[in-house]
Formats: sequence, C-alpha cells, structure tokens
Amino acid sequence: MLEQEVTSLKRKLIEYAALVEKMIDKSIKGLLNKDKNLFFEVRDKDEPRANDFEIELEDLCTVIIAKYQPAAKDLRTIMRVSQMNNDLERLADLAVNIVESGLILVEKPPLKPLIDIPHMARIASKMVKDSIDSFTNEDPILAKDVCKRDQTIDDLKDQVMRELITYMMSDVSSIERAFQLIRIANSLERIGDLATNICEDVIYIVEGKTIKHGKAE
Amino acid sequence: MLEQEVTSLKRKLIEYAALVEKMIDKSIKGLLNKDKNLFFEVRDKDEPRANDFEIELEDLCTVIIAKYQPAAKDLRTIMRVSQMNNDLERLADLAVNIVESGLILVEKPPLKPLIDIPHMARIASKMVKDSIDSFTNEDPILAKDVCKRDQTIDDLKDQVMRELITYMMSDVSSIERAFQLIRIANSLERIGDLATNICEDVIYIVEGKTIKHGKAE
Repeated sequence: MLEQEVTSLKRKLIEYAALVEKMIDKSIKGLLNKDKNLFFEVRDKDEPRANDFEIELEDLCTVIIAKYQPAAKDLRTIMRVSQMNNDLERLADLAVNIVESGLILVEKPPLKPLIDIPHMARIASKMVKDSIDSFTNEDPILAKDVCKRDQTIDDLKDQVMRELITYMMSDVSSIERAFQLIRIANSLERIGDLATNICEDVIYIVEGKTIKHGKAE
Repeated sequence: MLEQEVTSLKRKLIEYAALVEKMIDKSIKGLLNKDKNLFFEVRDKDEPRANDFEIELEDLCTVIIAKYQPAAKDLRTIMRVSQMNNDLERLADLAVNIVESGLILVEKPPLKPLIDIPHMARIASKMVKDSIDSFTNEDPILAKDVCKRDQTIDDLKDQVMRELITYMMSDVSSIERAFQLIRIANSLERIGDLATNICEDVIYIVEGKTIKHGKAE
C-alpha cells in the first residue's frame, strides 16, 4: 500500500537524518575535545554510509512514485522528501568540512579564542536536531521556531568573522588557524541554512504552504 | 503528451540555466572590471528571477508526474531534472556570494595579486557553460570531460589559498581583502562541484548510469 511505503520512506529518511545529526555532533565534539578518533569516524565510517543512504533514498522515492502513481498531494510529499534527502547529503558534507579543518587545527597549538564558535555549534546542532524532530512528529510550530533561529546563527557568524579577522591582524602567526576557524564558522552557518530548508519542507508537507526564499505562495 | 511536456520542461530548465550562467559570468566580470552595476544586476534583478524559476520548475516536475504517471525511465529523468533545478538554485546563490564579496572589495584599494582567481573563474564559468550544453545536446562525452576538470579547479583553489595565506602573513593590511578573495575562491570551487553534479545527472539521463559520489552502480 502507498501509505505504508510512504511511512517506511519517512522512517528511512529519519534513520538517515539520525546518522547525519550524529556526524555533525561528532565533528563538533571532535573539535572541542581535540579528538582525532571522532574525526576519523565521521570521515571514514559515517560519510560512506551517508552516501549510500542518499542513493538508496533517491531510488526509493522514484520506485514508490512509479509503482503507486500517487495523486498530487502524496507526490508533493515524496518530492519534498527527495529534497530533504539532498539537504541531508549536503549536511553530511559540511560535517566532513568541519572534520577536515579540525584535523588541521588539532596538529597546531590551540588558538585561544574559539570565540563564539562553540556557541554557534550548539545552536546549529540543535537546529538540525529540531528540524528532524519537527519532521518525525509533523510539528510545524517547532519547524517555524527553527527557521527563526537562522538569523541568530547568521549574526553570530558575522561577529565571529569580524573577531577572527581582528585577531589575525594583531597576531600574524594565528592566520592559518584563524582561517580554519572561519571555515568552520562558515560550515556552521550553512548547517543552519540547511536545517531551515528542511523545516520549510516540513511546513510544506504538514500545512501545504511553500515558504521557500522567504516568500509564501 | 508526456513527451512534449518533458521537452518543454527541459526547455524551461535550459532557460533557467542560461540565466544562472549569466549571473556567474556577470559576478566574475564585475569582479575583474570592478563594475558595481553588474553586481547590483545579479543581486537585485537576476536573483529574484532565479528563485521564481526554481519554484516554477519544481512545480512543473510534480504536475507532469501527477498528470502523466510516467514509467520508471521518464520518471527518473524528471527526478534528475528536479535535482538539477536544485543545483541551479545553489549556483545562483554562489553568484550572489561572489557579488557580496565583490561589493566589499570594490570599496577598497585593489590587492595586487588576484593570483589564480581569474584563471579559476574562467574554468568554473566554462564548466557551467559546458554542463548546460551537455544537457541541451545530450552529450555525455562533454559531460564526462567537465567532471574531469573538477580536479583542476580543486587544485587551483588549494594553491590560491596557500598563496593568499602567505600574503596575509606578510602584509597584515591585506587580511580583509585576502579573506574576501578566499571566499570567492571557495565559491568558484563549489561552482565547479555543482557543474560536476549537473554533468553526472546528464550522464545518468543519457546513459542510465549513476556516477554520484564517484561510484558507478
């Protein structure tokens, strides 16, 4: 039955999302604790699994549509699940980006001011968690709340950038490390964007309204 | 008829792609010629149009599937077109990122070494052009050629990064400008990635083979 297939598709997406959420958390934890093992886990064990998930889910979406030829409403849900699948892959890539910067940073003496990066990381990670919860529980109120947090993380990133640039200027030997921190701040900001994308899809699936690009239609 | 609808869907995607290609070219040209008008065009005129295109195409994909309930092969094509649509939106965003950095740079005295950025920009822009041509002409040979170029642009980016970091270290007053150039180099690298994604989709549509994540299946 179509309904069962859509339910199992959603379950698979939630499983994938749980993996990606863990990847992000591990990449951040690895950074805060200078734990190379967590970095290797994300890069060498989780990332290939994430890629397999994405391919499997893409295939599943197509198979369900071909088999059940769902009506517009279900079809739109499946198409959004396919978009979310794509966003999860991008989130996994961002976790790997953080890991790559982390692996460079871990070899160097610590740069005192991680500044607001741990704070950004906490917000980003919570946004991802809540975006997935909002999908699991079909909770548009939580989804809308996540969308609102995106501005906070954008503002934090701008502040982190300004501070790191000032820091680079005052201490030339910090440039390379500061640069990796900037890369991490960028990744965290994009993680927030993607969590927002997922929430927009959840709102669409539950309420049938498109709020992409900040415009309702 | 389904065939006609798919043809018109493809035509619309090509139209969208042409807009995005122009956005990227304008953002680069604006950077090389310090032409603020080009930046404003991209940000204020082209970007909203790009967003409208994306929403329209997403809708069109769903409507065609719902109306014609195509068999697996056509369906997979339409699902890939939907992915390409998503990639085009991300390309448009990257053009806007370049514009944002460009607008900051244009207000400051020029930093002598644009280094290999114009070279990277030429390759990235050609990759986008060829990815779209490979779709328009259903040309998997061209598509595969584009995929190969991705390594060149990745290598160039690493080199640009190294040179800019060295430059920042030797001249503290260059940091903020060098930083914007790094942001641009990052955007160009991601433009190359997305052109590669599009080409992988073209290869899939023409040859029926998935080569995502570097694995054939």
